[in-house]
Amino acid sequence: MADLRFGIIGWGYWGPKIARNLDSIAHATVTAVADMDKHRVALLAGQQPGLQVTSQVEELLRSDVDAVVIATPVRTHYALAKQALLHGKHVLVEKPLTASVAEAEELVALARQVDRVLMVGHTFEYSPAVNELRKLVQSGELGKIYCVEAERVNLGLFRRDINVIWDLAPHDVSILLYLFGQLPEQVQVQANAHLLPPIHDVAHLDLGFPDGMTAHIHVSWLHPCKLRRVTVIGDARMVVYDDTNPAEMIKIYNKGADVNADPVVSYRHGAITIPHIDWIEPLRLECEDFIHAIRTGTPPRASGEVGLSVVRVLAAAQDALNQQLRTLVSDTIPA
Amino acid sequence: MADLRFGIIGWGYWGPKIARNLDSIAHATVTAVADMDKHRVALLAGQQPGLQVTSQVEELLRSDVDAVVIATPVRTHYALAKQALLHGKHVLVEKPLTASVAEAEELVALARQVDRVLMVGHTFEYSPAVNELRKLVQSGELGKIYCVEAERVNLGLFRRDINVIWDLAPHDVSILLYLFGQLPEQVQVQANAHLLPPIHDVAHLDLGFPDGMTAHIHVSWLHPCKLRRVTVIGDARMVVYDDTNPAEMIKIYNKGADVNADPVVSYRHGAITIPHIDWIEPLRLECEDFIHAIRTGTPPRASGEVGLSVVRVLAAAQDALNQQLRTLVSDTIPA
Amino acid sequence: MADLRFGIIGWGYWGPKIARNLDSIAHATVTAVADMDKHRVALLAGQQPGLQVTSQVEELLRSDVDAVVIATPVRTHYALAKQALLHGKHVLVEKPLTASVAEAEELVALARQVDRVLMVGHTFEYSPAVNELRKLVQSGELGKIYCVEAERVNLGLFRRDINVIWDLAPHDVSILLYLFGQLPEQVQVQANAHLLPPIHDVAHLDLGFPDGMTAHIHVSWLHPCKLRRVTVIGDARMVVYDDTNPAEMIKIYNKGADVNADPVVSYRHGAITIPHIDWIEPLRLECEDFIHAIRTGTPPRASGEVGLSVVRVLAAAQDALNQQLRTLVSDTIPA
Amino acid sequence: MADLRFGIIGWGYWGPKIARNLDSIAHATVTAVADMDKHRVALLAGQQPGLQVTSQVEELLRSDVDAVVIATPVRTHYALAKQALLHGKHVLVEKPLTASVAEAEELVALARQVDRVLMVGHTFEYSPAVNELRKLVQSGELGKIYCVEAERVNLGLFRRDINVIWDLAPHDVSILLYLFGQLPEQVQVQANAHLLPPIHDVAHLDLGFPDGMTAHIHVSWLHPCKLRRVTVIGDARMVVYDDTNPAEMIKIYNKGADVNADPVVSYRHGAITIPHIDWIEPLRLECEDFIHAIRTGTPPRASGEVGLSVVRVLAAAQDALNQQLRTLVSDTIPA
Repeated sequence: MADLRFGIIGWGYWGPKIARNLDSIAHATVTAVADMDKHRVALLAGQQPGLQVTSQVEELLRSDVDAVVIATPVRTHYALAKQALLHGKHVLVEKPLTASVAEAEELVALARQVDRVLMVGHTFEYSPAVNELRKLVQSGELGKIYCVEAERVNLGLFRRDINVIWDLAPHDVSILLYLFGQLPEQVQVQANAHLLPPIHDVAHLDLGFPDGMTAHIHVSWLHPCKLRRVTVIGDARMVVYDDTNPAEMIKIYNKGADVNADPVVSYRHGAITIPHIDWIEPLRLECEDFIHAIRTGTPPRASGEVGLSVVRVLAAAQDALNQQLRTLVSDTIPA
Repeated sequence: MADLRFGIIGWGYWGPKIARNLDSIAHATVTAVADMDKHRVALLAGQQPGLQVTSQVEELLRSDVDAVVIATPVRTHYALAKQALLHGKHVLVEKPLTASVAEAEELVALARQVDRVLMVGHTFEYSPAVNELRKLVQSGELGKIYCVEAERVNLGLFRRDINVIWDLAPHDVSILLYLFGQLPEQVQVQANAHLLPPIHDVAHLDLGFPDGMTAHIHVSWLHPCKLRRVTVIGDARMVVYDDTNPAEMIKIYNKGADVNADPVVSYRHGAITIPHIDWIEPLRLECEDFIHAIRTGTPPRASGEVGLSVVRVLAAAQDALNQQLRTLVSDTIPA
Repeated sequence: MADLRFGIIGWGYWGPKIARNLDSIAHATVTAVADMDKHRVALLAGQQPGLQVTSQVEELLRSDVDAVVIATPVRTHYALAKQALLHGKHVLVEKPLTASVAEAEELVALARQVDRVLMVGHTFEYSPAVNELRKLVQSGELGKIYCVEAERVNLGLFRRDINVIWDLAPHDVSILLYLFGQLPEQVQVQANAHLLPPIHDVAHLDLGFPDGMTAHIHVSWLHPCKLRRVTVIGDARMVVYDDTNPAEMIKIYNKGADVNADPVVSYRHGAITIPHIDWIEPLRLECEDFIHAIRTGTPPRASGEVGLSVVRVLAAAQDALNQQLRTLVSDTIPA
Repeated sequence: MADLRFGIIGWGYWGPKIARNLDSIAHATVTAVADMDKHRVALLAGQQPGLQVTSQVEELLRSDVDAVVIATPVRTHYALAKQALLHGKHVLVEKPLTASVAEAEELVALARQVDRVLMVGHTFEYSPAVNELRKLVQSGELGKIYCVEAERVNLGLFRRDINVIWDLAPHDVSILLYLFGQLPEQVQVQANAHLLPPIHDVAHLDLGFPDGMTAHIHVSWLHPCKLRRVTVIGDARMVVYDDTNPAEMIKIYNKGADVNADPVVSYRHGAITIPHIDWIEPLRLECEDFIHAIRTGTPPRASGEVGLSVVRVLAAAQDALNQQLRTLVSDTIPA
């Protein structure tokens, strides 16, 4: 099997992680790295003499790499991915795919035109826990889904280029689209910019889906505890997926409320089940899917189209945020 | 000291609990009970022969009780409390005080006019944990408060006379008003009616306060876990109040993010402190406060005025709910 | 059905609790209470005028009660129970049944002779969680049981009349005998008297059963956390019973290690299941069983014979404690 | 500064981890690896061409490495360490240092004689959490220490060359010696061999110290949950160190029982404090200490002498196990 050669653009937090995973896969090698920071480039060149390291993206794109990974700030995703596709490279872009719907649409169309893989780094779609949850949803075991509650909060990391919705909500939105296979019709947002206005650091999104299901997403950089939780509430069963609890990531509650004649509501309380999950690093599976897509032409799970859908929801949330309305409460509390 | 005689109107969930607490206090006795359910009345009369039991509220109000407790459905609060005040009784009404702002205003004015105590059963204002939290807020130890996140969710109990906002949010709103001593200016609501439309069973309230502080309240009858949590996020410290964890009800996180020149944001990570709380049953303290108010003329902590403020917020939330707007997300997810 | 009349001897912690439960059962009434403390007797007489209250046990025993509950210090159990049986009363004695094997044997024989019920207050045998655990053990679902680990620790309450083994281990020993239906053959003890020597306040018991199963019991009055946990380790499944976690009292781990040819040991990791348990107050069920035994002549679950077995194990543990041997470690750590 | 060259003997679980840490330290390089498994040697040689890889320890010892790390089965520690010291190498041996006291004594003496560093891989002595706990103990903040309870249990990994005491207890014994700076005088053991007799897989050790303090260690390969907990109980404060809970590793309970005239025992209940711990990988600190000892001649924290002390306690525990006595319980439970 011919070896695949990869270039990494952006050597910050994600770049080295993805490179390590690609390198650990047979017949895949990272051969080139580009980063704008010349000091970082020099350091890396010293440590890994075999690697082609540059501060010029153009140089990397002109090299013989088959595919590139773009792990740079969001505002640069569109231009870099476009350039890479035009150089005939397969492209994996960190999430979110782009900063606007128009940009994402253009990239998706371009990738088709040049017949190259366009993929987005929605890591959670590759999480064994999320896939267990998806199996539960899609098998009908949970019954009709009423609603979903998602929380992704912690102290920091504050970003200055994007708000907390564009930073953290791509995870939850991509999980929701992956679980249910449909886009929300409506979105409502409650958000605030406490620390560094006007950058919103706390947000609550409420999504309405065509079949009446709703999803609430709470993202925050201002919280004392690290919470990463998705609760799916069906009429037959309810599930809590807690990403911070490795021993009990998926907890299935066989309980619910049923509507009858008399009494109108009755309650079921059954067992809780915690399935065993064989853990594989999601980033490893993501890299394997990228390679598989390149070799076979099959679209990857986190395709450009999926990336576009997530950007659509984020953009609608941003619109909702820009026009958010509040009802006034008159009068004040007595002294 | 002269004995105080109490009548209880409504012998459902709260009636017997309040009666037991009143009876356990020296020089206070429950002497009369009224309930519309004749079967319940007959049963109680058999068990407690000394008690005056009736299905006619009028009969109880004409008796020699000094004060009455109204523990009936919300829609009846106004008429019963008005009647009781007009009979010259001191009145403790279960939360929420009334079903509308106008009703609550009228009761408050009437109580002043007839010079009787009007109190509302905001039990959490008497919780030692809430009072510990209030001390932390008011001492300035938490610094400037950015925001509050409150959760009060569980499976059931579904009610058919009021929605989840009027059922559960009075607790959180009364806690917020008690902690901060001010009314929110704005309220935004995201709510859904999944099980028994049109009764809303899941709701997210977002409150904006004059000084920029925001509070988010999540109430639900459709959740697999029982959560009763209030997180207060200040710029100096953050606190989680978890009412379901008796051993660690208040957890103070000495951590935060600070804005500087360079780097723009830095993070502090200090110790967590869990103060010891001497526990006294809040309902016991509430009953003692009612008696103290009757004997001394001092307004109780959960006065009619406070009850009115809570109803103001609930009514504004109901208005917001009636007019809630959502932003559309165009297009659909690719097949 | 004729009413049963009960007398309570000892109005301390357990007496009032048992009385309240007996009173709540149809056709059962507590009519008499005896306590040595004259002040307590006077107070109770004032509160409950209908009750026959005395400081003379003899007086209570000569009254027309059908049965007595003995809730006094352990050293008095034997004499009081004997006296009550000789007066023809049915007897429920708080745990442990007596302070020695000889005393327990005599009571069991006497109860047979006078044909009266002799029962011991092993409350945990009536716990729905313990019964769920017993069902798992006895159905064979856990496979062959290797060992059991039991913990019952907290800060206090220190007792001056008995050590921690006689105070806390009766719970765990009675649970073990109830789960497995057999007595241990051997017992080994490690115990220490830290706070009030020579009263042992921390103890570890190791019990060996005929079939090779072992059980370890850790009891302590000197621990920062309240732990009440029994872990049953079978070759097919393992179960943790945590009495302090109402929502997850029984947790079944479908996991284990299997011995094979090659590799010698392989590991199974399956789902965790938390069965729903319909909770009924164990003390209520205990009181019902006492009444049922009196009315039907059927031996109660926690019979005098079972009480004797538990005393046998406690007495053997005390013997082991009196002769405990330790191996010396020579030399000291370098400076 | 001259570079230090390291050789690793044994390329199993610990070998690669230590190598990675040594390599990440400036002026330290792993240049040679020896392992008896020829297949593993060939594989490693292919992956890291710069490395000198061999299946002959002798070859590695004759190379120019300054120091060696011995990460092989326990029974081989003594011979390999002796050989390495005689070749003039500094030596870091995985825990436990040797399989017997005599072997450990000989190594300690030899290291002094040839003036080389002899160190043992007691990783927990380098854990920031253990060091926080030690500071609490040694500052007197906990008061007089009554006792310690240590648990280190999980399902597996079963070993066939040593029992669970020699496998897991070195961690807890080395922590105890590091916290308190003294050897226990007595040791008592309760142990069982359930899965692969005669290899003991569950053990309870009870250690008695000169000043009356006791320590209990529970180690097991047969438990459904992973527990790694050390509870230190002082008369002023109590501390739980939970190595499996990164967010709350050290929990200080300001509570206790005090002995007075009347009442004899009173209870204090104060705040719980969870100090923030700046986390550094213990293995990294261990490697740095090895390098520091080599460069400066200062003895490392986990010196050969400390390793000898731990082996002394383990050997005494093994003696106690070999002669463990149990008290018989006569008679059986009634049918």
